[in-house]
Amino acid sequence: MSEATARNSEDRLQQLREALESGELQHLRRMLHSLHPAEIALLLESLPQAEREIVWRIVDPDDHGEILLHLNDHARAQLIEGMDAAALLAAAEGLEMDDLADLIADLPEAVTQRLLYSMDADNRERLQTVLSYPADTAGGLMNTDPVTVRADVSVDVVLRYLRLRGELPEQTDALFVVDRYQKYLGALPVAMLVTYDPNRVVGEIMDTEIRPFDVGLSEREVTQRFENLDLMSAPVVDANGVLVGRITIDDVVDVIRDEAERNLMTLAGLDEEEDIFAPVLASARRRAVWLGVQLLTAFIAARVIGLFEAPLEKIVALAVLMPIVPSMGGVAGTQTLTVMIRAMALGQIDITNAYYMLRKEIGVAMLNGVLWAVIVAAIAIVWFHSVDIGIAIAVAMAVNLLVAAAAGVGLPLVLRRFGIDPALAGSVILTTVTDVVGFAVFLGLGGLILLGQI
Amino acid sequence: MSEATARNSEDRLQQLREALESGELQHLRRMLHSLHPAEIALLLESLPQAEREIVWRIVDPDDHGEILLHLNDHARAQLIEGMDAAALLAAAEGLEMDDLADLIADLPEAVTQRLLYSMDADNRERLQTVLSYPADTAGGLMNTDPVTVRADVSVDVVLRYLRLRGELPEQTDALFVVDRYQKYLGALPVAMLVTYDPNRVVGEIMDTEIRPFDVGLSEREVTQRFENLDLMSAPVVDANGVLVGRITIDDVVDVIRDEAERNLMTLAGLDEEEDIFAPVLASARRRAVWLGVQLLTAFIAARVIGLFEAPLEKIVALAVLMPIVPSMGGVAGTQTLTVMIRAMALGQIDITNAYYMLRKEIGVAMLNGVLWAVIVAAIAIVWFHSVDIGIAIAVAMAVNLLVAAAAGVGLPLVLRRFGIDPALAGSVILTTVTDVVGFAVFLGLGGLILLGQI
Repeated sequence: MSEATARNSEDRLQQLREALESGELQHLRRMLHSLHPAEIALLLESLPQAEREIVWRIVDPDDHGEILLHLNDHARAQLIEGMDAAALLAAAEGLEMDDLADLIADLPEAVTQRLLYSMDADNRERLQTVLSYPADTAGGLMNTDPVTVRADVSVDVVLRYLRLRGELPEQTDALFVVDRYQKYLGALPVAMLVTYDPNRVVGEIMDTEIRPFDVGLSEREVTQRFENLDLMSAPVVDANGVLVGRITIDDVVDVIRDEAERNLMTLAGLDEEEDIFAPVLASARRRAVWLGVQLLTAFIAARVIGLFEAPLEKIVALAVLMPIVPSMGGVAGTQTLTVMIRAMALGQIDITNAYYMLRKEIGVAMLNGVLWAVIVAAIAIVWFHSVDIGIAIAVAMAVNLLVAAAAGVGLPLVLRRFGIDPALAGSVILTTVTDVVGFAVFLGLGGLILLGQI
Repeated sequence: MSEATARNSEDRLQQLREALESGELQHLRRMLHSLHPAEIALLLESLPQAEREIVWRIVDPDDHGEILLHLNDHARAQLIEGMDAAALLAAAEGLEMDDLADLIADLPEAVTQRLLYSMDADNRERLQTVLSYPADTAGGLMNTDPVTVRADVSVDVVLRYLRLRGELPEQTDALFVVDRYQKYLGALPVAMLVTYDPNRVVGEIMDTEIRPFDVGLSEREVTQRFENLDLMSAPVVDANGVLVGRITIDDVVDVIRDEAERNLMTLAGLDEEEDIFAPVLASARRRAVWLGVQLLTAFIAARVIGLFEAPLEKIVALAVLMPIVPSMGGVAGTQTLTVMIRAMALGQIDITNAYYMLRKEIGVAMLNGVLWAVIVAAIAIVWFHSVDIGIAIAVAMAVNLLVAAAAGVGLPLVLRRFGIDPALAGSVILTTVTDVVGFAVFLGLGGLILLGQI
């Protein structure tokens, strides 16, 4: 595969790793040069730690800041540790304010101090503004570089001002109109500047439809508004309506991506920042917690099984078939839970319509419960030549699917009420419920029908 | 909660549902009017089917097209079914070409024909261009509305042309420079038009750094480039380098969101378009397939347990403890699998570094295997007063965690080689492996140690 034919980033990353493997550092350097910082960050994450540091030394230092930003926490900390104060300062200097604010938390205290000291008063104040808001609010996401104009000037005056000023900040699709107290009045899309008559007055043509974002607006609400209104940038104001910054779509895209990854990783009890080449010990420790929680639920299930030692000792078929019932319940419940988690993330579910949702899921569970109960019973009867076993497993299956549906709808609502993330705790609790109910009903009923005792 | 104090979209949706519940249609209409089509779509999806149709009749018909676009497949089909040809035509007419191309597949054939017939030749040709590319490629995502200029004119000429032309298409952050054969030459950011000297010539200042996207580029590659390069729009060219359209960030954001949802839903064996209020029968049928697959794997596990009837009949402790081993193996394997799936989606894993990944995951599994083996053994010994049981479960646990790690790394690579989505099939196959190994090792070893036989 030659450089020129690399059709996609996957192939490019593979080529880079191959160049590294074969020690062709000259070739590697040339290839790295053609990559964007975000792509280099992806490559670095895909390398074991030793190789990561080799590549880091070859990368253009001008890109260091941007690359560090795109790395996961672990890889970032690893590389920062190996850099001296001067290199860190140089890396930080090229960054935009919102990005710098993200990075600064990971820098050594001494470097942060020197960095603040080396900035001019204006920039220092801007950085401190961004740092004063939580990272997951509009204030933490915003940049402090909006270009502002006044309402009483003409388009022509704005154009002359911009030509004097030179370059606009990246991702500038609109200027913002403010009054003399910096209060936000409206947006002036750049497209207007190039299509409207130069004699028009800004105050007459500016767009007042777009409501400014409050600095305290949550990250999630910010992304929803960008998605729903197809925004490219948005003004951010403080409690007094004073323009303090602007949010751009590129940062919103990063938030959307992070959120999606968090969901995926959380469901498996993983840290969203899980580095694929983090040290074994660190990974093992983080994952051990989740395994410990699961072990606890497994012992709860075992304890329930232990209640039915008598039937289990006498009828070995019960032991053979018993994992089927909780397993099906867990799968069905997880489906309901996933639908609920997604709908809740989109703001589509609350108590006003949870009842309909429950009714629907119970309906689905009844249909599937009957279907699979009959099939499982038929197989069990043929296998163990016992109609009683078939009846026990059929009833247990149907009951467990109903319980799974109810738990799948109810659990996330209850968890949210208590401020617990349903994606994290939901599936553990749900499968504990379906395990306990599944084992208890099947073994209890099996004992009762076959032995007349439990 | 009053209209004015609704702090976020969740509250707004809840208010709307409450207004609907109480039959205040006037109030509802007023509230709907203040919503963006994407928000109305979210609301409609959150309503049971009957209520959905009531709200649909109140919505401003001008928004019908946009709302239909944002709905999931099921809700869209439901509402389209209730509309007559004239209403559908009106809804389709306001849409952009790429959006219309998405919608058209769901319209009745007769409406499509009338729609094509009612368009002028230019628009019909554009629509057919977009329709001729697969929906998940750059060609399917693009819009056919780029504004083009020639390289030999000055900025001033461009500005005069734009003022004559009037409004720019939405999300236009750059014009594209083409030669007389419509071949793509470069991009001319609108920001340049307002900051550069009007006498500069377009060909000298245009941005040639951004490589145009090939029409055949995959959706995934499109989103990666937008994310990595922080693009707001990008030119699309055909095999001859002729500019055929442009892709804008708002459509890319939709793709990113859809992809994230697909991952989440696929892991639970659900359709990404799963409508929370789809008819019970339709939902039950779709989910039954997944439950059937799971039942098959549950019976495989049961079949394995059946091989050990002899030890199970004699030692009831084996039956009580046996679900613990496969359950822990499944959880640990799912963690590895999730890390792999994410890394593969980012293009970070292939055979060149899978070996390192395997080594790391085996390391993690060894640490956690030893830790939990000791803990489980201790509990089992205390519970059943048998060191032999403790040894059997400890060994089974350690072996199963190692197998889980190896399967978690190897399975997705093998599945991808065969063109199967690891997110869909990975977790079923993985848990089948950990079930079979877990039961077999524990019961086999238990029989061997305690009875001297299997």
